[in-house]
Amino acid sequence: MKGAVLYGPRDVRFEEREEPRIVEPTDAILRLSLTCVCGSDLWPYRGLQPIDGPTPMGHEYCGVVEEVGSAVRSVKPGQFVVGSFATSDNTCPNCLYGYPSSCVHREFMTRAQAPFLRVPLADGTLVATPGDPSEDLIPSLLTTSDVLGTGWFAADAANVKPGSTVVVVGDGAVGLLGVLSAKQMGAERIIAMSRHEKRQQLAREFGATDIVTERGDEGVTRIVDLTGGLGANSVLECVGTHESMMQAIRCTRRGGYVSYVGVPHAVELNGQELFFSHVHLHGGPAPVRKYRPRLIELVLNGRINPGKVFDLTLPLNQVAEGYRAMDERRAIKALLRP
Amino acid sequence: MKGAVLYGPRDVRFEEREEPRIVEPTDAILRLSLTCVCGSDLWPYRGLQPIDGPTPMGHEYCGVVEEVGSAVRSVKPGQFVVGSFATSDNTCPNCLYGYPSSCVHREFMTRAQAPFLRVPLADGTLVATPGDPSEDLIPSLLTTSDVLGTGWFAADAANVKPGSTVVVVGDGAVGLLGVLSAKQMGAERIIAMSRHEKRQQLAREFGATDIVTERGDEGVTRIVDLTGGLGANSVLECVGTHESMMQAIRCTRRGGYVSYVGVPHAVELNGQELFFSHVHLHGGPAPVRKYRPRLIELVLNGRINPGKVFDLTLPLNQVAEGYRAMDERRAIKALLRP
Repeated sequence: MKGAVLYGPRDVRFEEREEPRIVEPTDAILRLSLTCVCGSDLWPYRGLQPIDGPTPMGHEYCGVVEEVGSAVRSVKPGQFVVGSFATSDNTCPNCLYGYPSSCVHREFMTRAQAPFLRVPLADGTLVATPGDPSEDLIPSLLTTSDVLGTGWFAADAANVKPGSTVVVVGDGAVGLLGVLSAKQMGAERIIAMSRHEKRQQLAREFGATDIVTERGDEGVTRIVDLTGGLGANSVLECVGTHESMMQAIRCTRRGGYVSYVGVPHAVELNGQELFFSHVHLHGGPAPVRKYRPRLIELVLNGRINPGKVFDLTLPLNQVAEGYRAMDERRAIKALLRP
Repeated sequence: MKGAVLYGPRDVRFEEREEPRIVEPTDAILRLSLTCVCGSDLWPYRGLQPIDGPTPMGHEYCGVVEEVGSAVRSVKPGQFVVGSFATSDNTCPNCLYGYPSSCVHREFMTRAQAPFLRVPLADGTLVATPGDPSEDLIPSLLTTSDVLGTGWFAADAANVKPGSTVVVVGDGAVGLLGVLSAKQMGAERIIAMSRHEKRQQLAREFGATDIVTERGDEGVTRIVDLTGGLGANSVLECVGTHESMMQAIRCTRRGGYVSYVGVPHAVELNGQELFFSHVHLHGGPAPVRKYRPRLIELVLNGRINPGKVFDLTLPLNQVAEGYRAMDERRAIKALLRP
């Protein structure tokens, strides 16, 4: 089979890779219906995160179970399933504590931009849909693999409640789905920080009530002005740079909540500023597995349409164009059809 | 009158200072019954925090109201009161949100090592006891000014609940009262990190179930071993150095809670380590005013005896010896009698 392999900065190739097979009795093999490019794939693509030789790419996926190992009990061949970017057994103390993305047996997935995929810990990692979903819902179901669950965690970790005032820093797919999640959780006011017209439109469609185009100190000043001089209850940091993190903290009211869900790059937090900001801070790899059953239900009931973040669809053999379009911000998120 | 003034590293003088008088109609003047030296006073005393010329010291206080400004309504001359290290009006949005120590009209107190003290925003800042307290309870009541409220916040911000496993990093008075607070909140297991015998004893008296004498990486390894390989639910960082902060974060289980309540000195948190630690982080100047009515009640009912942290009592004119004894760790906390 052929799949995506990153060779170096801006060098993604679609090339022959070994077909996956069952290795452990807890594995499953999926025939992928859809996969996609993640904002986090752009860090190594841009050369901002080192890679150790040619690296198969991809960690968002859904598809049909092709084969299962002898110990797999909860999914079976023929079922449509969605899996997580991090495997989890769902039985370890970290999983039971609500953090499957810190499962003691966690492996990060990295071969999903391909037609077939081996998924370790299949019982814990995969969630099957009730019956076969209709074709048009599959992009939205795919988002429950990572990007929607990550936006949902951003809102949850930032303590979004009915009536909250929320700020979302970052207008990538995670930020936009952070807006959608905050709306679902009952936020009254959702301020999206974006200077990109198409993304602003989608943010509004997902529930943003205000758009702030300023960034950095100017952006902070605007948010403070918009929130009666106080800052917001809940601020979702969905970028992962030092600048965006500080912008998020400074947009938050004393005693408010900041979440951060993208792997931080070159972020160093000064203890004294954090102390006097009086914020709550929580983040990390999103426990998407925990949220997935509920998110699948919301998709199947037509309550949400997170698949709208895919504004570019390509056959998998054009995966390199998917990376290019996202890198150049021509596309919010590229959907790939194996 | 004479009070404490810091001139430079290890140079505290007891010298003539102007007697305070009402400046604003919202002020009160107190005749102090007791005051004390705070662990945070040691930062400038040790030259680790710059001062801007001779600095009157002290921010923990209780005493009898001598005089009030024309706008003061909630306290009156003759009442025994305890005040906060930070003034608060108790009516601003930050106060109402539970963070009086970030009151929009906040001033940090810094003249309490003296016989008389002017307290701005007296209505918000001071809490009167019901009637005159007996002499033996006054040291414990004094702790509700700062040190007990700060330990209480440490436990609260670290999400201590009935049944929690708690680690306390730091065996100063705040850490010891963090132990007491965690016990009051129903913690099942409280591990105090201390290598000082007298402090270990007091920690046990306040409710510690385990003592860990190792520090740094060795200390972390011990805590992880003691908690089934996971780390603790709730970790209270009560020191304020980079080492203690990292020790606290690394002692915490994935998804657990870290609080920090001492002004951080030279603390820089690496975003990526924090991200993968998956902890909740919260801290800042403790909202002691919010907790004080309940803490006073616990003291008056004899449920707690936080005044035990005072293991040295001096007349105010020996304030310099109080600093020396704490600096050299001969005393946990020095009580001063004006």
